Amino acid sequence: MVEPSYHDPVRTDERPGDGAARGTARMEAFADAVFAIAFTLPLVEIALPKGGHGFGERLAALSPAYLGYVLASLVIGIYWVHHHFSGAIYRTTGHYFNLATALFLAAIGFIAFPARAFAENIADPTSRGTGAIFFAMGLFVTSLTWLIKWTVGRKSRHVDDRLEANYVLSLDRRYRASTMASGLGAALAVIEWRIGLGLAMIVLLGYLRAPRTPVYRSIAPTIEGES
Amino acid sequence: MVEPSYHDPVRTDERPGDGAARGTARMEAFADAVFAIAFTLPLVEIALPKGGHGFGERLAALSPAYLGYVLASLVIGIYWVHHHFSGAIYRTTGHYFNLATALFLAAIGFIAFPARAFAENIADPTSRGTGAIFFAMGLFVTSLTWLIKWTVGRKSRHVDDRLEANYVLSLDRRYRASTMASGLGAALAVIEWRIGLGLAMIVLLGYLRAPRTPVYRSIAPTIEGES
Amino acid sequence: MVEPSYHDPVRTDERPGDGAARGTARMEAFADAVFAIAFTLPLVEIALPKGGHGFGERLAALSPAYLGYVLASLVIGIYWVHHHFSGAIYRTTGHYFNLATALFLAAIGFIAFPARAFAENIADPTSRGTGAIFFAMGLFVTSLTWLIKWTVGRKSRHVDDRLEANYVLSLDRRYRASTMASGLGAALAVIEWRIGLGLAMIVLLGYLRAPRTPVYRSIAPTIEGES
Amino acid sequence: MVEPSYHDPVRTDERPGDGAARGTARMEAFADAVFAIAFTLPLVEIALPKGGHGFGERLAALSPAYLGYVLASLVIGIYWVHHHFSGAIYRTTGHYFNLATALFLAAIGFIAFPARAFAENIADPTSRGTGAIFFAMGLFVTSLTWLIKWTVGRKSRHVDDRLEANYVLSLDRRYRASTMASGLGAALAVIEWRIGLGLAMIVLLGYLRAPRTPVYRSIAPTIEGES
Repeated sequence: MVEPSYHDPVRTDERPGDGAARGTARMEAFADAVFAIAFTLPLVEIALPKGGHGFGERLAALSPAYLGYVLASLVIGIYWVHHHFSGAIYRTTGHYFNLATALFLAAIGFIAFPARAFAENIADPTSRGTGAIFFAMGLFVTSLTWLIKWTVGRKSRHVDDRLEANYVLSLDRRYRASTMASGLGAALAVIEWRIGLGLAMIVLLGYLRAPRTPVYRSIAPTIEGES
Repeated sequence: MVEPSYHDPVRTDERPGDGAARGTARMEAFADAVFAIAFTLPLVEIALPKGGHGFGERLAALSPAYLGYVLASLVIGIYWVHHHFSGAIYRTTGHYFNLATALFLAAIGFIAFPARAFAENIADPTSRGTGAIFFAMGLFVTSLTWLIKWTVGRKSRHVDDRLEANYVLSLDRRYRASTMASGLGAALAVIEWRIGLGLAMIVLLGYLRAPRTPVYRSIAPTIEGES
Repeated sequence: MVEPSYHDPVRTDERPGDGAARGTARMEAFADAVFAIAFTLPLVEIALPKGGHGFGERLAALSPAYLGYVLASLVIGIYWVHHHFSGAIYRTTGHYFNLATALFLAAIGFIAFPARAFAENIADPTSRGTGAIFFAMGLFVTSLTWLIKWTVGRKSRHVDDRLEANYVLSLDRRYRASTMASGLGAALAVIEWRIGLGLAMIVLLGYLRAPRTPVYRSIAPTIEGES
Repeated sequence: MVEPSYHDPVRTDERPGDGAARGTARMEAFADAVFAIAFTLPLVEIALPKGGHGFGERLAALSPAYLGYVLASLVIGIYWVHHHFSGAIYRTTGHYFNLATALFLAAIGFIAFPARAFAENIADPTSRGTGAIFFAMGLFVTSLTWLIKWTVGRKSRHVDDRLEANYVLSLDRRYRASTMASGLGAALAVIEWRIGLGLAMIVLLGYLRAPRTPVYRSIAPTIEGES
């Protein structure tokens, strides 16, 4: 089923800033704001413990909290960079694509919690395994909601139709493979957390590399054919 | 009374980004930011309980907090999608419309609290009824402020005047009916919370469906009439 | 001293969205984000008290917290609407105007705290006077930073020079008078908090009324003089 | 290595708001949102102590918290103004530049914590030295990530190529010198915190002065040469 888009041909002459454009600008701005908050909010959790220790020791005692901040920043930062990139991929938005985006953003808003739960239990042999499973599951769910968003966007024809079909397919394959590998990581983490979480993290860190530059269908032949 | 708008015909040639445009762009951006914060903030409330239990049990003990996060994300996500859609409905903004928007956004910023209060008491037979009334009232108040915002926007002529009158009327009817049903839900929740909150939730979930595509007045006849 | 603006005549043909424009768009967006956060953040302070009381009583016990949320929303909402309006007044921005904006926004970010401190002590005869002084002082400081921002913007020539001089003067007079009345309110609050805070609140509530529509210098005579 | 940018010559005729533009608008908006949150969030930490003291004394007891809010606002406000200015310097963005921006923003999101830790220990002779080292290190790390962002942006050719080489070099020298002086301050703080933190703060406060207006390569001779 092709989702009805808000696109309105009557209004294509509108000024872009006046809210009538049903391009992706506003959805992106909302997503960027959620990213920004999810990125910054984990600091609220970092509070100096009160107590009899010296100040330096209390700062040092926060090292799991710092690790949690670093892990959350890493996950959210990487997804933000790729979400930013996807602005070059989608051209329009619509109701169900917006709902899928909200689902993805709920996962982004949540991921700092498993990251912190893992970091705060990393020194405790009895609970770090559970923390690692929880974090690996968080990475998998985030990857899954990204894939859902991508799939809804692609099936509802919001992807720029000037992109080469092969290019879109290569993104599709990459996102599917990543989600499957993340899911495998979350499953393996139940057996051996180092391997499972390690796999999920390797999938994530693979996105530190720049995505392929978008490839557009050549339109020159058509023009030449007319002359 | 028609509210004076900031519209300034001298400046219609302005570049849209320079703040002189009194279109809806900035109001939408502000609203989107409030939505984004309201959407992300509930995570701050989720903190792992310290204590003698195992880590897995402590994670499981948070399930009411997860439910609160899901409920808040659902309400805020649905309103965001429809607020995003309303960017296609309004063309200008003004002082009283902005005030009505601020009122609606205060309700959006508040709704996570009743959602959490309900979720955290859902397992306690002595207090879940009160929590449900509180949440149903929160849903009603949010719906009411949305209706106020819509009504101020419509009466102050901020709605795009190229929309068909019937289309605008259909939105008006839908928003009025939803607010009335939500209010009925909040009232019924006092007698039997399952029915009352259920009704308020059904009204909300009805908005998961895409809104009707905007219908514009045909301008073709006029053009044909000239030839 | 006229502050050097970032205005760059070479680039006036730029697309508005690419960050090169030194119009007010980005400053407004930043300010709107701070407003949005300041508007939404007070909810974090509202947490259900744990304890032996019934759930309904615990909800009722939060009424000072609700009042604090309402007061903070009122102050921040009114300033937001007028800051939004000021987008029609300024045309450019610059270094010192941005610094003055940051100062004003720090006051906006802070105002929720005095509002809450007053609300939470309103039922306690021994401390509500101090709370009222604190809130009235917060209202005065916010009004003062608004006046500083306005004055820096006006003296650094960021105000739209097509506005009539009389119109700009009327804004100047209004902002100066409001700050003076707020300051008087804060001073009177030390003697009798009801009168002092009452005055500061009346000044604020006066801004619920729409500001005068901007008046532009007529440019028609010049054109006629050429013919 | 020149980083592949998202720039797409096919799309330069796009409307700026539709997300296809790979200018710096979205990166700036994201950064501004993080700045706005980092700027506003420290207020959450300010909570009135409960207890047997009078209300006025409890407000006064918060003075270290107010100092922390002022210090954090100062650091974040100054960086925001210069980041805003840098919108006139960069013309495009890309994957690695976005990652460097995320790194810088993680430092901005973190800086309120050392600022608060220093402010809350300023009255305690046994711990204020450690607090000062921590804050000076925070200022150094923030300066370092700014330099990394600048260097990645410059080496990846995102800087506006119409700027005079000398102008770009002067920025480069200033940013390098500031980071080195901040690092020296952090190191000296270990020996004598007053001198070390003083140096780091002087470097920061030097940025209260407006940056030099961008200087563009003259293009007039080429035009004259054609006639």
